Amino acid sequence: MFNIALVGAGRIGRIHAANLAAHPALTLKYVIDPVADAAQAVATRWHAEVVSLDHALGDDSVSGVVVASATDAHLDQALQAIAAGKTVMCEKPLDLDLARARSAADALGGPDVPLMLGFNRRFDRHFMALKQGLDAGAVGVLETLHIISHDPAPPPPAYVRVSGGLFKDMAIHDFDMARWLLGEVFAATSCLIDPRIGEAGDIDTAKTILRTPSGKLCVISNSRRSGYGYDQRIEAFGSKGALRADNVMETTLGRWGEAGMASDAFQNFFLDRYAEAYQREVAHFADMLAGVAKPSVGYADGVAALALAEAAGLSSRTGKTVSL
Amino acid sequence: MFNIALVGAGRIGRIHAANLAAHPALTLKYVIDPVADAAQAVATRWHAEVVSLDHALGDDSVSGVVVASATDAHLDQALQAIAAGKTVMCEKPLDLDLARARSAADALGGPDVPLMLGFNRRFDRHFMALKQGLDAGAVGVLETLHIISHDPAPPPPAYVRVSGGLFKDMAIHDFDMARWLLGEVFAATSCLIDPRIGEAGDIDTAKTILRTPSGKLCVISNSRRSGYGYDQRIEAFGSKGALRADNVMETTLGRWGEAGMASDAFQNFFLDRYAEAYQREVAHFADMLAGVAKPSVGYADGVAALALAEAAGLSSRTGKTVSL
Amino acid sequence: MFNIALVGAGRIGRIHAANLAAHPALTLKYVIDPVADAAQAVATRWHAEVVSLDHALGDDSVSGVVVASATDAHLDQALQAIAAGKTVMCEKPLDLDLARARSAADALGGPDVPLMLGFNRRFDRHFMALKQGLDAGAVGVLETLHIISHDPAPPPPAYVRVSGGLFKDMAIHDFDMARWLLGEVFAATSCLIDPRIGEAGDIDTAKTILRTPSGKLCVISNSRRSGYGYDQRIEAFGSKGALRADNVMETTLGRWGEAGMASDAFQNFFLDRYAEAYQREVAHFADMLAGVAKPSVGYADGVAALALAEAAGLSSRTGKTVSL
Amino acid sequence: MFNIALVGAGRIGRIHAANLAAHPALTLKYVIDPVADAAQAVATRWHAEVVSLDHALGDDSVSGVVVASATDAHLDQALQAIAAGKTVMCEKPLDLDLARARSAADALGGPDVPLMLGFNRRFDRHFMALKQGLDAGAVGVLETLHIISHDPAPPPPAYVRVSGGLFKDMAIHDFDMARWLLGEVFAATSCLIDPRIGEAGDIDTAKTILRTPSGKLCVISNSRRSGYGYDQRIEAFGSKGALRADNVMETTLGRWGEAGMASDAFQNFFLDRYAEAYQREVAHFADMLAGVAKPSVGYADGVAALALAEAAGLSSRTGKTVSL
Repeated sequence: MFNIALVGAGRIGRIHAANLAAHPALTLKYVIDPVADAAQAVATRWHAEVVSLDHALGDDSVSGVVVASATDAHLDQALQAIAAGKTVMCEKPLDLDLARARSAADALGGPDVPLMLGFNRRFDRHFMALKQGLDAGAVGVLETLHIISHDPAPPPPAYVRVSGGLFKDMAIHDFDMARWLLGEVFAATSCLIDPRIGEAGDIDTAKTILRTPSGKLCVISNSRRSGYGYDQRIEAFGSKGALRADNVMETTLGRWGEAGMASDAFQNFFLDRYAEAYQREVAHFADMLAGVAKPSVGYADGVAALALAEAAGLSSRTGKTVSL
Repeated sequence: MFNIALVGAGRIGRIHAANLAAHPALTLKYVIDPVADAAQAVATRWHAEVVSLDHALGDDSVSGVVVASATDAHLDQALQAIAAGKTVMCEKPLDLDLARARSAADALGGPDVPLMLGFNRRFDRHFMALKQGLDAGAVGVLETLHIISHDPAPPPPAYVRVSGGLFKDMAIHDFDMARWLLGEVFAATSCLIDPRIGEAGDIDTAKTILRTPSGKLCVISNSRRSGYGYDQRIEAFGSKGALRADNVMETTLGRWGEAGMASDAFQNFFLDRYAEAYQREVAHFADMLAGVAKPSVGYADGVAALALAEAAGLSSRTGKTVSL
Repeated sequence: MFNIALVGAGRIGRIHAANLAAHPALTLKYVIDPVADAAQAVATRWHAEVVSLDHALGDDSVSGVVVASATDAHLDQALQAIAAGKTVMCEKPLDLDLARARSAADALGGPDVPLMLGFNRRFDRHFMALKQGLDAGAVGVLETLHIISHDPAPPPPAYVRVSGGLFKDMAIHDFDMARWLLGEVFAATSCLIDPRIGEAGDIDTAKTILRTPSGKLCVISNSRRSGYGYDQRIEAFGSKGALRADNVMETTLGRWGEAGMASDAFQNFFLDRYAEAYQREVAHFADMLAGVAKPSVGYADGVAALALAEAAGLSSRTGKTVSL
Repeated sequence: MFNIALVGAGRIGRIHAANLAAHPALTLKYVIDPVADAAQAVATRWHAEVVSLDHALGDDSVSGVVVASATDAHLDQALQAIAAGKTVMCEKPLDLDLARARSAADALGGPDVPLMLGFNRRFDRHFMALKQGLDAGAVGVLETLHIISHDPAPPPPAYVRVSGGLFKDMAIHDFDMARWLLGEVFAATSCLIDPRIGEAGDIDTAKTILRTPSGKLCVISNSRRSGYGYDQRIEAFGSKGALRADNVMETTLGRWGEAGMASDAFQNFFLDRYAEAYQREVAHFADMLAGVAKPSVGYADGVAALALAEAAGLSSRTGKTVSL
């Protein structure tokens, strides 16, 4: 059994807490959060203890640290935990400042950073099946990619203020999906947004085109609100056909009436759609702790996705294609 | 060009009239109907002439006769046309009286009766594709069959009175489908109906099980009203999988909202669903007239389907399996 | 926390063991099974102890007993546990002998038997949504019902010998579904089977029609092997439309190629399809133990489903409709 | 009856010929094509006469001219026919030279040019239903649009050379769809293409983003070959949900096997998908001739779509957003 300290007892921290507690090889020992009530509620629910981060990092019985705090604290806490000899699972994005994330990478010295980045979509069964199909050549050579990622409703303003904005907070998942599926570092980014919303300091809708060095194209559609639930789809067009991963409905129920067929509701948000993916993430983290796996998605992936997010932001402000 | 006489200017007669007129090898020459206005309307629309049946049958330039009159006149008019040397396309059912249909068959002497029976579902592209898949062994050996045939709304009482009842009027299509797909004469029929409706002289809902000599089973579900349009589906279960032909919607439009996905309406009734099938029927009739085809569905098929309809009626009244 | 004794460490016992161990209010204390290795494996995996049934029933700290043994032991063990003051969750079918199950019911004295029957489909999210839709009047008055229940592949012969046959082992679920959704005791059953298979002592394919006193009709299709995975569907036809619960695929992946669209595989069997339902069953059992729920599906439901299974068997042998 | 002259007896000309001949109010009188054999084949099939364009335009009994010649002849022939007092249905694109099309518009003097442009997708039942849904506010205010338009296979090189390239030949349909559905003149276009293919003189894959003055965004995906047939889909995202028009399969047949569900093939190309749309186009043209309709899509629409095609081409060459 490996003891784990969880940093962050908010929405996503609570998901990880439940999955850590349920995993047969992991024990949730500590919960750290500046909001004392939140920390205590999680600790009580899962028989853990509320402590400070320093206390947790100083405890040699702790093998792993899960960083699920506010975005602007991710990188510092992850580096601190790595320095204390812990293995880290860190929520996305790695950081909001690309330069800082890059320079820290240099200090950590190379690709074997013991950090797994929480890009949960890589652990989604539907996207995993799509990736396996592509790797198996099911549609020949992959040529273009469409990623749709629309949230059901915008996050609260307080969250938006510290989130880093649409590209670093939300689209960062899609940039990682694009890198994962296309298997190339990107050459160019071109983005258009709704300019009126841009004036308010952030954006809620964006269409981004990526182009790889070998000429593959990827379109990403982002929206902060859909009016129909969580829209998470990928279409991959190859030389011999296409692969698609589709949305998931609450149930398979269908109602047939005069107006036609009506389905059940779309799964509303990521807590439903990615419940299993979060479990697989924790299982992968347990395998890292047991020494039987290297992080399938790590520090360098976090930096690369952040670089795309910055490029998309720059393109949306200048109206020009940005080359990386 | 072959000249055609059309007997019957009702709903189904008007469909045939349009398809006969549009076929490059056929000319609609005569329209016969006891309701003079109906006959005249069809004749005017398609540049034909209203005459008596005797007149039409006595005209040597007439090669083919399409019988689309009231059900109880089908057999007499078809026999009269055959006696006059015409090739006949006759609407289903062949007749309401099995014994009479059988004895007429004996008089006509054998399987080469120049009559094509209007079982339009045999000409539906979806069911044709299902039949081709079965014949090609796409799911191994066919074992059981589910046929769903629900009308959107009941016919008017005046029609029901002369229709022969649910089994001979409506389910007769499904009995023919079962014979066509299973390729066997049936051994047993078992049927349950809603008894309250039965008291009113006809039924509007029935579930019938057929069993072939080799042990294949077929379930037929009939309903006079669906509440959602025309439901025409077949599922064929084989030793290695299943084939299904599904319903058709008006368009592919989908609306995504809080409640889920909503499709466009189901096609409402047979005029939409089988528009193409009726065209193919007429094309097959033209091929018969040109001597390049024998009737793919003929007199004997009409008798066989009628025998199943009688057996189903008997089973529903006695609560016993009826062996043929 | 309530201590639980699990009787039976086979395929279904292992599922319950995992769900009992994972439930926050339950502790799996004892495992009972005549096959010592099987019992020990489950006990070791979940930190429980292997004991005899008498030992477990004599332990006052045990509140609940889960009966997941061979079918012919269900009733005796359930009655023994009830006599010892335990609350019971019992796998289906309750027993293979209708008369015996009925007389035991009399001895237990009334409807408040502390026994929950493991009809897992009542806890399936898709069928629950269908039931809720019907109860809410989504399609008006329910009139007819189609239940499809095809297994991917037949069970091993050793299982079949003690299973009670297709109707009592497999279709019993569907008889319970029919009662649950139609809300009526049945009036008549009519069944046809493949007679050649019947000669071998059991059947592998059956089509059964049920009719309720008020005239509602239900068709059940059973097959021991499908060639395409687990087929578990229900269509409910009402006066204003239809509700359907459909099969579930492994993922939403679709491949588009020259031949059309190809989906991912169907979920293969009940361990996948009903994984969640088994968890909900255990949660309901925990609520019973906590005194906040009565069994939603109990002893009387087990007897009623068994009565339908016997009637179906009789109808299949006699070729007659059987009235209950 | 209105007499029609058809200019062009190629693939698209033959479709129009059949629809013109079948329409009850139209007569195909003349066929004009520099390839004498092609012209004669169409004329023979539909009982028309092969003549020169001058002859046809000089015949006062000719009311309408359908221009379905090579792209670079469209505008000249259309102008010539208009000058001769004929009503014109002209294939897309109007011309390959935006400046020329604009100056001709000035010469024609205003919006009442008696010319209908053959943007066939406006007459597709699926896209018409989507447009009606948007206009009826089914998803609130339209915000963004995704248009997918992938051909099954590239046209022959000889066609490509005179086609005007991907944007003016193929994407021109999508630019018109975007204008029709979004209801605004566009403000900006940003496009990325596969640069290697661009070097060969044309492109076969492009992703284009359009932005309207009010901030609505539209993504267009074009590919000259799909590997799975004709991909013609639109997704329209509004403030309260989304509307989608999907692809059409050959039949509803589905095959269920170990690997999952397999559909029938996608409709292969526009001759299947838009067969009905072409009929509706001709019917609309007949209404124009009868004086009961004005062109629903006319000269100005052709100019506007051409302007977008030029802007997309410029953006793809410069890597910059182009403002109109």
